[in-house]
Amino acid sequence: MTMSFAKIAIIGLGLQGGSIGLAVQQYLPKIATSGYDRDPATRARAAERGLVGHVAETAVEAVQDADLVIFCVPLGAMGDAARECAPGLRPDAVISDVGSSKEAVAKVLGEVLPNHVIIPAHPVAGTENSGPDAGFASLFEGRWCIITPAEGTDPFEIERLSVLWQAIGARVEIMAPAHHDRVLAVTSHLPHLIAYTIVGTAGDLEEVTQNEVIKYSAGGFRDFTRIAASDPTMWRDVFLYNRDAVLHMLQVFTEDLTELQKAIRLGDGEKLFDHFTRTRAIRRSIIEQGQDVASANFGRDGKV
Amino acid sequence: MTMSFAKIAIIGLGLQGGSIGLAVQQYLPKIATSGYDRDPATRARAAERGLVGHVAETAVEAVQDADLVIFCVPLGAMGDAARECAPGLRPDAVISDVGSSKEAVAKVLGEVLPNHVIIPAHPVAGTENSGPDAGFASLFEGRWCIITPAEGTDPFEIERLSVLWQAIGARVEIMAPAHHDRVLAVTSHLPHLIAYTIVGTAGDLEEVTQNEVIKYSAGGFRDFTRIAASDPTMWRDVFLYNRDAVLHMLQVFTEDLTELQKAIRLGDGEKLFDHFTRTRAIRRSIIEQGQDVASANFGRDGKV
Ligand SMILES: NC(=O)c1ccc[n+]([C@@H]2O[C@H](COP(=O)([O-])OP(=O)(O)OC[C@H]3O[C@@H](n4cnc5c(N)ncnc54)[C@H](OP(=O)(O)O)[C@@H]3O)[C@@H](O)[C@H]2O)c1
Ligand SMILES: NC(=O)c1ccc[n+]([C@@H]2O[C@H](COP(=O)([O-])OP(=O)(O)OC[C@H]3O[C@@H](n4cnc5c(N)ncnc54)[C@H](OP(=O)(O)O)[C@@H]3O)[C@@H](O)[C@H]2O)c1
Repeated sequence: MTMSFAKIAIIGLGLQGGSIGLAVQQYLPKIATSGYDRDPATRARAAERGLVGHVAETAVEAVQDADLVIFCVPLGAMGDAARECAPGLRPDAVISDVGSSKEAVAKVLGEVLPNHVIIPAHPVAGTENSGPDAGFASLFEGRWCIITPAEGTDPFEIERLSVLWQAIGARVEIMAPAHHDRVLAVTSHLPHLIAYTIVGTAGDLEEVTQNEVIKYSAGGFRDFTRIAASDPTMWRDVFLYNRDAVLHMLQVFTEDLTELQKAIRLGDGEKLFDHFTRTRAIRRSIIEQGQDVASANFGRDGKV
Repeated sequence: MTMSFAKIAIIGLGLQGGSIGLAVQQYLPKIATSGYDRDPATRARAAERGLVGHVAETAVEAVQDADLVIFCVPLGAMGDAARECAPGLRPDAVISDVGSSKEAVAKVLGEVLPNHVIIPAHPVAGTENSGPDAGFASLFEGRWCIITPAEGTDPFEIERLSVLWQAIGARVEIMAPAHHDRVLAVTSHLPHLIAYTIVGTAGDLEEVTQNEVIKYSAGGFRDFTRIAASDPTMWRDVFLYNRDAVLHMLQVFTEDLTELQKAIRLGDGEKLFDHFTRTRAIRRSIIEQGQDVASANFGRDGKV
């Protein structure tokens, strides 16, 4: 058995599926790629952009001969997508995915495909865009891909999948699914929930018009709107499928917010100053570790 | 009396003061500029960078002969800065500022300089950086500057100040100070408070290490850390000097967050989906009105 896969099938040709397809073709041109999406318009566009070597007309056709199948559909569609592929799967095909929560996905894929080696994964890389035009080959460069195998999974298969992700630019970390779900609840799901909330709040106010909110958004608000422009289907599913971890983090956040609210109400400048000083250090580390750029305003003004 | 000012004195040579100084020298080279900062190291660096035509050693020296004085210091320092300048001010010098809250500043400047024409202003333009190295001439380009004159202010003087801001790239809006404070509470102050909170929350968790938060920040969290890296003194003052409007907006936000929390708890996917769909429209408008860039991830990856 060789370290490399011979043919990868990608189910769901949006931001993640498209980016994986483009990256594999660019960095690992010897691996054959095929893909399928339930939306005919997406399939047509995927073929035009060459997101995978072959865009199949059915899920069964796409997975034919594939030794790795990666599900790149919203969390709520994983079960359906797996069921559709099942009749065409090679018995030894490794099953993986890119879903943003991992315990729930492992469970549903395990139920639908009980006889397959299933190794869930989650590349912590994305943008606010989705669909067949959103993907690009360098999406994973320098980003982490978290692989969450069940206990007892063949180490060789884990290693094969790790090597693949590294070859397309990612750094790989192995983690227990439950821990993954808690980590992502705080680094991704809670920020999205907060951003969706505040953008909604600002849009609904009576005393400040929506036009004013838009005009003066450069004061900080506009950063939140980028995140709150992410795909509603994907994010609905994240909150449905990682509910417990999200609700837990939300509670801790609410407690902290209540404390700062109290400091503002009491005019406790020292407490505010101390809090605002501590948070700077975290940004410095993120920049040092290559997870963000140092330029002011993310460099979007093309200045400084 | 001419439409243009002859000499502008800038008190406080950080991000805002430095940017105004550079912009005036670039776009209005006939206007003389002088500046003062209480920090000798900042004065030295300001002179090196040429943030203003002349860096004075005292506030009194800086305002000598100036027909416009702009206070660019933290909100809590406005009173002290005005007191220091008072003995040197021309009796007809117009007084302005760039403070992020307007009712409180109007009050303190009015108390310290009761015989002057005072026209507070707030350029809604900034970055997370501060100090004498942070300023750049194009900071105000395409951004809004909100001018909040008291009722009865000489329209000619308001117009002079408006023309100045437009000449250095800003678009100008006139607004009542109390309304300004509510608008900015939602477009700037609440987002900063939320960002400071969540970055603090993430840094303090027991079940997720700070190193994990940093590694996996590309999932959304890193956007918040930019804002939460802003100057602690400035932001302490914003929350002390715009307390009521911030507490009000925070209450509305908390109600909305509680509603989404309930939807997650109940698994109400439809409610989540509807909310997440509405928020997309606001981002589209912000981009259409030139207040943000459309490229994915703010274009910081240099991709798409
Ligand atoms: N976006 C991010 O930042 C990000 C980051 C990391 C991980 N993820 C995860 O990646 C997965 C995909 O996200 P994405 O951003 O790539 O979404 P996307 O751009 O919307 O792509 C998903 C694609 O899957 C298709 N699809 C839905 N159900 C299907 C089915 N049963 N069979 C075949 N295709 C189906 C969708 O078609 P329709 O349009 O017809 O529904 C869509 O074209 C999600 O599980 C998400 O949690 C996303
Ligand atoms: N940053 C933004 O995004 C933004 C946007 C719009 C408006 N504003 C407003 O602009 C004002 C200045 O903010 P900034 O971002 O330019 O801050 P900054 O970069 O920290 O600059 C403020 C400067 O004022 C100096 N200073 C403090 N007290 C002084 C005094 N009594 N006399 C003379 N100089 C004094 C400070 O010196 P020390 O370092 O010694 O304290 C510092 O060099 C604030 O009122 C803020 O609310 C900021």
